[in-house]
Amino acid sequence: MSNEKFERPSHVVLTSHSNQVFKESLPVNWGATNPKDRGPIIATISEKENRNAIGTHSGSYTVYRALSIAKGDYAREHRPELENTFSPVVIKPQESWFDPEKIVSIDPWGGHIQELYGDYIKEGYNIKPTIAVTQARLHIPEIFEAIDKGRLEIDGDIVAEDKSIKVTKIAFEPVWYLPGIAKRLGIEEGELRKILFNETGGMFPELVTRPDLKVLLPPIGSTTAYVFGDVEKLSDSEAELSCRVHDECNGSDVFGSDICTCRPYLTYGIEHAAKTAQKGGVGLIVYYRKEGRALGEVTKFLVYNARKRQEGGDTASNYFKRTECVAGVEDARFQEFMPDILQYFGIKKIHNLHSMSNMKYDAIAKSGIEVVNRISIPDELIPADAQVEMEAKKAAGYFTAGEVKDKDGLDKVLGRNLEE
Amino acid sequence: MSNEKFERPSHVVLTSHSNQVFKESLPVNWGATNPKDRGPIIATISEKENRNAIGTHSGSYTVYRALSIAKGDYAREHRPELENTFSPVVIKPQESWFDPEKIVSIDPWGGHIQELYGDYIKEGYNIKPTIAVTQARLHIPEIFEAIDKGRLEIDGDIVAEDKSIKVTKIAFEPVWYLPGIAKRLGIEEGELRKILFNETGGMFPELVTRPDLKVLLPPIGSTTAYVFGDVEKLSDSEAELSCRVHDECNGSDVFGSDICTCRPYLTYGIEHAAKTAQKGGVGLIVYYRKEGRALGEVTKFLVYNARKRQEGGDTASNYFKRTECVAGVEDARFQEFMPDILQYFGIKKIHNLHSMSNMKYDAIAKSGIEVVNRISIPDELIPADAQVEMEAKKAAGYFTAGEVKDKDGLDKVLGRNLEE
Repeated sequence: MSNEKFERPSHVVLTSHSNQVFKESLPVNWGATNPKDRGPIIATISEKENRNAIGTHSGSYTVYRALSIAKGDYAREHRPELENTFSPVVIKPQESWFDPEKIVSIDPWGGHIQELYGDYIKEGYNIKPTIAVTQARLHIPEIFEAIDKGRLEIDGDIVAEDKSIKVTKIAFEPVWYLPGIAKRLGIEEGELRKILFNETGGMFPELVTRPDLKVLLPPIGSTTAYVFGDVEKLSDSEAELSCRVHDECNGSDVFGSDICTCRPYLTYGIEHAAKTAQKGGVGLIVYYRKEGRALGEVTKFLVYNARKRQEGGDTASNYFKRTECVAGVEDARFQEFMPDILQYFGIKKIHNLHSMSNMKYDAIAKSGIEVVNRISIPDELIPADAQVEMEAKKAAGYFTAGEVKDKDGLDKVLGRNLEE
Repeated sequence: MSNEKFERPSHVVLTSHSNQVFKESLPVNWGATNPKDRGPIIATISEKENRNAIGTHSGSYTVYRALSIAKGDYAREHRPELENTFSPVVIKPQESWFDPEKIVSIDPWGGHIQELYGDYIKEGYNIKPTIAVTQARLHIPEIFEAIDKGRLEIDGDIVAEDKSIKVTKIAFEPVWYLPGIAKRLGIEEGELRKILFNETGGMFPELVTRPDLKVLLPPIGSTTAYVFGDVEKLSDSEAELSCRVHDECNGSDVFGSDICTCRPYLTYGIEHAAKTAQKGGVGLIVYYRKEGRALGEVTKFLVYNARKRQEGGDTASNYFKRTECVAGVEDARFQEFMPDILQYFGIKKIHNLHSMSNMKYDAIAKSGIEVVNRISIPDELIPADAQVEMEAKKAAGYFTAGEVKDKDGLDKVLGRNLEE
């Protein structure tokens, strides 16, 4: 099969204007009290007349899918065979799933399409899951160390004899309800659509020509949640919950670069998540693909160089300034949408939030979730070169249980030279 | 500055048709013998009349940038202040940079815009780097173990006293020269443009309306190269080169999931790369953002479940089949473009290629690079549950120095149950 050439589309439909609205497309009633009334999101390409969303599946991987088709490796009309792919655990609908404002950046029903929209699928609608759940065992060197040092115990349940940790993991594709996105950002929907179109270099004309299409599947990275212990306990305020909402940093998370604290924060969060599950609570790590403050690595590396070379060296007092000069903004991450994943699980209370970011804390609080304790990373886990970031953040008002340095102190927190 | 509201665009230009070609835009002559004749790639949004490419910068992070503007945090007209951002090492142009076919998916001059196109920048052209270089120290637990076990030495140069490894790292944003991309895939440029437009749900009408624009900055992830030792040695065939071209796998690379061998392969590659540099050679790890065979994690998790639940269990003999059923293709990765990064560094010979993939090997060989040894991962580094993947790949013809199992043997290589 993989060597056959598949038929290619012979014509191009440039832009679907409102007068081309197809009667075959099912309406989307975001936040409807019944998921059948809400309706499935149809963003596949095979039957254009059924589409009720802008963009398509798999985030930015849609570009690779298109190349696969161009190369002839991929059946254009492929429908996913979903036999046996269902979740190994039950993910129960939560009140937030019926609220059009609590969740606006993922489709809460995106993991239940077979049960809910099976009839449509049989009728020929090409509906794809946007949420998938599986189980895994994690082997993490920092966790092995935590066990060896007696900080974490082998219990044969959460932590196995081979020191691996058992988790349930959930992948979320972005599905944006544009009226809700606009409201979160405090802007008119029409303005949001224009800006999204203009500032991406003209991606998806439907943003401006099809105001009737309210849902966008943007070509951005997905989000993955790792649950330690029983998923159902996430919605139980009585069960202790330890949680880290982690923004991707490839240089540290994978390669252990010592200019920041990302991986140490992450593995400390995992350790605490596992420990909380062992005590009868539950742990949650959410991994958001927002590399380099959602600016990307090219910008990040330019900023590193500018920080290291600036007059007076890489001091904590100048930490934020350089990003803004190079990138135009200190930080392009949107913590505004981050709590949607927490709402998906029905979380109402976080007992231990592993983060020193006020942006994260504020977004969580604003979404109606109570945070009991904020946990900052223990000093001994901070790499030497990352002290610049750490002290700059504390001085800027990030959460810390420890001391905050004044300007004079910040000038003295100096990172390594570029060539060292 | 970050709290001001910036002026928003008041009108929308839907599609730039060919009759709207602006005389202010500079021509792009891909592969020209002189980089000034090649011309800068201008894909910024601030002066639309200067644009000579489709799409815009930062890959998929452009969507976050647009949201930043919508929220009012970001100066729409921001020009990057590039002072002090230049590379800490000299990256010398290579013959391949002047060849329109050797490099088609990145802009080889994208890291040299200040030297080459400084005059244009002064004139007001908003030109942005698409390549950035910096230096870092990596702290990796598996490397600490390699040192403790005597496999890797502290030399105070490549490997520091604190067991960190010194590297030069280079981030590459995707910049696609469409005629070259089409040629690599064996398809007409016009067909490629139509498919890219249609199959992404109508991203960038300019793909079909502006055949004069030959360059696309697609909204996909970037690529990062980590160099161990002297970058200049990469182009010297006499210097021993150990190399791993690694496709992202977040579940293993970051979280150590044991269903695959991704992180063990990566850290083994890093160990060997450092060791080769210590011996006077050079090491290279290239990290490509192609999660889950460029299908994304939602698909990946569905496939995991289907594999674990199929009749007979998760056997090596059924490994590839399940991905094709769920996703429509076994693998959507494009090793066809992967060697562009190797060509960027002027690599002509790889002494030790850490990979068992024939797709990778074939693409490298096809691009004219000689591979001396192919290195597969030592058995003791393969997690138990990943034996399914490993044996399936060997039987499918992936490279191995070891034994290949027959059908009967493959049926017996059985992964863990889903609920175990």
